[in-house]
Amino acid sequence: MTPRPALTVVGATGGAGAVMLQILTQHADVWGEVRLVASARSAGRKLLVRGAECEVLALGEEALEGADVVVFLVPAEVAARWAPVAAAKGAVVVDSSAAFRMDPDVPLVVPELNPHAVRMRPRGIVASPHATTLAMSVAVGALHAEFCLSELVVSTYQAASGEGQPGVEALRRQVSLVAGTQLGTNPGDVRRAVGDELGPFPAPLALNVVPWTGELADDGWSSQELGIRDELRKVLGLPRLPVSATCVRVPVVTTHSASVHARFENEVEVARAHEILATAPGVVLFDNPAVGEFPTPADVVGTDPTWVGRVRRSPDDPRVLELFVCGDNLRKGTALNAAHIAELAAREFNGR
Amino acid sequence: MTPRPALTVVGATGGAGAVMLQILTQHADVWGEVRLVASARSAGRKLLVRGAECEVLALGEEALEGADVVVFLVPAEVAARWAPVAAAKGAVVVDSSAAFRMDPDVPLVVPELNPHAVRMRPRGIVASPHATTLAMSVAVGALHAEFCLSELVVSTYQAASGEGQPGVEALRRQVSLVAGTQLGTNPGDVRRAVGDELGPFPAPLALNVVPWTGELADDGWSSQELGIRDELRKVLGLPRLPVSATCVRVPVVTTHSASVHARFENEVEVARAHEILATAPGVVLFDNPAVGEFPTPADVVGTDPTWVGRVRRSPDDPRVLELFVCGDNLRKGTALNAAHIAELAAREFNGR
Ligand SMILES: NC(=O)c1ccc[n+]([C@@H]2O[C@H](COP(=O)([O-])OP(=O)(O)OC[C@H]3O[C@@H](n4cnc5c(N)ncnc54)[C@H](OP(=O)(O)O)[C@@H]3O)[C@@H](O)[C@H]2O)c1
Ligand SMILES: NC(=O)c1ccc[n+]([C@@H]2O[C@H](COP(=O)([O-])OP(=O)(O)OC[C@H]3O[C@@H](n4cnc5c(N)ncnc54)[C@H](OP(=O)(O)O)[C@@H]3O)[C@@H](O)[C@H]2O)c1
Repeated sequence: MTPRPALTVVGATGGAGAVMLQILTQHADVWGEVRLVASARSAGRKLLVRGAECEVLALGEEALEGADVVVFLVPAEVAARWAPVAAAKGAVVVDSSAAFRMDPDVPLVVPELNPHAVRMRPRGIVASPHATTLAMSVAVGALHAEFCLSELVVSTYQAASGEGQPGVEALRRQVSLVAGTQLGTNPGDVRRAVGDELGPFPAPLALNVVPWTGELADDGWSSQELGIRDELRKVLGLPRLPVSATCVRVPVVTTHSASVHARFENEVEVARAHEILATAPGVVLFDNPAVGEFPTPADVVGTDPTWVGRVRRSPDDPRVLELFVCGDNLRKGTALNAAHIAELAAREFNGR
Repeated sequence: MTPRPALTVVGATGGAGAVMLQILTQHADVWGEVRLVASARSAGRKLLVRGAECEVLALGEEALEGADVVVFLVPAEVAARWAPVAAAKGAVVVDSSAAFRMDPDVPLVVPELNPHAVRMRPRGIVASPHATTLAMSVAVGALHAEFCLSELVVSTYQAASGEGQPGVEALRRQVSLVAGTQLGTNPGDVRRAVGDELGPFPAPLALNVVPWTGELADDGWSSQELGIRDELRKVLGLPRLPVSATCVRVPVVTTHSASVHARFENEVEVARAHEILATAPGVVLFDNPAVGEFPTPADVVGTDPTWVGRVRRSPDDPRVLELFVCGDNLRKGTALNAAHIAELAAREFNGR
């Protein structure tokens, strides 16, 4: 019997890390040793994985020694510094941050769409897309295979946990500050109540929506809006696809949603789109508003697939479909997609 | 001196009614007698308007007698029944419900865009658009005058008060039920906590977004989505404009937002769009993300204009602008637009 590959999870103590430990416990176990790593702050903490306690190591050269696959679930600047170190030690690196997504020598992988790209990794690094890209890419990719995409217009409804645990904690504190009040009717009353509890957000999130995520990029665009455009083009293999994204944070704990306007080269039929979505891997079709069936974050959170509803054809253009998609940003949006990529990589070690 | 025209407000006890009373107290006073009307449930209640107490009358033939202008701020079925009665008694009727908006013999008026349409009212009734239409129409109309609209794709972020006081109360109860908890991370936990406190919404709204507003119309569209299309076409005088709308309810008390993707016949420049929006009546331009300036409902609520930010040109198409707009759905979205229309009508009585 060949020894099973060794896995190291960097960022095991974070929001995405917690979901990764669940996934490692629940999925068919393809791993030998599993090592957990986080910052020096967490060194010595014990976390439960595959039914056993495991001590967290501090990130450093030593912690990255000996792994076959290393998954990074850490801020982009930490990944940028340490992913190449892990790759230089011979591991296959899977990174879920923005650090390497647009590097032409790093494949950007959604296993349902482009699994073979995992093997083409000159730097030894494979990147996983942003959670918002992931929420829509499986659905949009399946429809593209049949109808041929020609344009996407996307507006997002992004959850607080997209800003990690600090985002979740800020939203929870803010919700407590506005609960049981009459706030939300007078100018600035929510802002005054929230005070300096903004957390990582540029404006209050409780009883509010904030049309800004990411950093300022060119010409008034945010980095995440341009990132969704770049990532969808790369994952779908359509380098010139027009993509307009508007990113908006909403007071939801976990699960990103997106309203998607997709124009195709061919005419579309809702009935055929339903068939495609009902059988697409990683997608659940949930689309019967007559009986209250459409996806919402509260119902989708904690589940693996992308949920798709509100499928409509434009009355003005028979080549346009509208969709509403929801995907748990910590599962398919981060840890689950990273785990799927890591499992693809694990197969390479089977024959050694 | 000619006597000033008499105004009757039907629905004075509702959310929009409360804002109308504020407006009547604050605006230059063009009215003679002001009469307040609501359901029989509210008859005898006393409300403050123009600094004096005023007793609420029950809606009926008698309550509608003698008015020059009657503003209806009531559910559509009540307006459908009683607006023609008021018109038959010779009043100019202003209705803010959906009852008459698409009637070809009823003008649909946004005073900043089509004030003259008020005088063309064969049924004696003038309609005011849906709050979401109103939030974007002044901004989009001003840009259309310069660049010529050829397509709109809209995704909304609609507040709870779009469902009246019952919507606001349900959201407040739900926020109290989820505050101080760890809810929002496990499937269905928000739904269980909210239980039967859904109020007028088809799914929990606290810590959630709900991609459904209005009733089921044809082919999976909601009545509000098709309504936004029909109303924008009518208000802008563009009966064939392609408009795709996706309506989503968000946990905000008051102020609707919309992400707008607008394609024009002519090429656009952000600098010129900024100039147009900065001087358009009823619009505030608030667009400098570098210093945190973009509109959010918490900052816009309680103010009169439509706030516009996040103005960007598509990197893929020089004829496309993206915008994010916020407008208080009880002010410009209902009571304020109705008051503006009523004030236009009041001028007709000046020379009698
Ligand atoms: N949340 C999402 O929706 C989402 C979606 C796609 C991708 N991602 C990416 O996934 C990554 C993790 O996100 P998250 O939501 O899990 O964030 P999080 O909850 O804030 O967790 C951050 C993790 O990174 C670790 N870390 C931080 N600084 C470190 C350092 N200097 N050295 C070693 N470890 C360090 C933390 O360890 P300590 O506990 O020791 O501080 C923690 O385990 C980010 O890159 C994010 O961009 C997130
Ligand atoms: N809220 C928005 O965003 C918005 C936007 C655009 C248009 N509108 C329209 O404006 C109207 C009012 O909205 P709202 O938010 O103010 O609603 P609301 O808070 O629920 O108030 C409803 C008003 O209608 C009165 N009413 C209900 N049934 C009646 C009846 N049978 N006879 C007489 N009066 C009756 C109520 O009187 P009682 O207090 O006596 O029940 C109350 O004054 C609706 O047509 C709505 O479609 C609302």
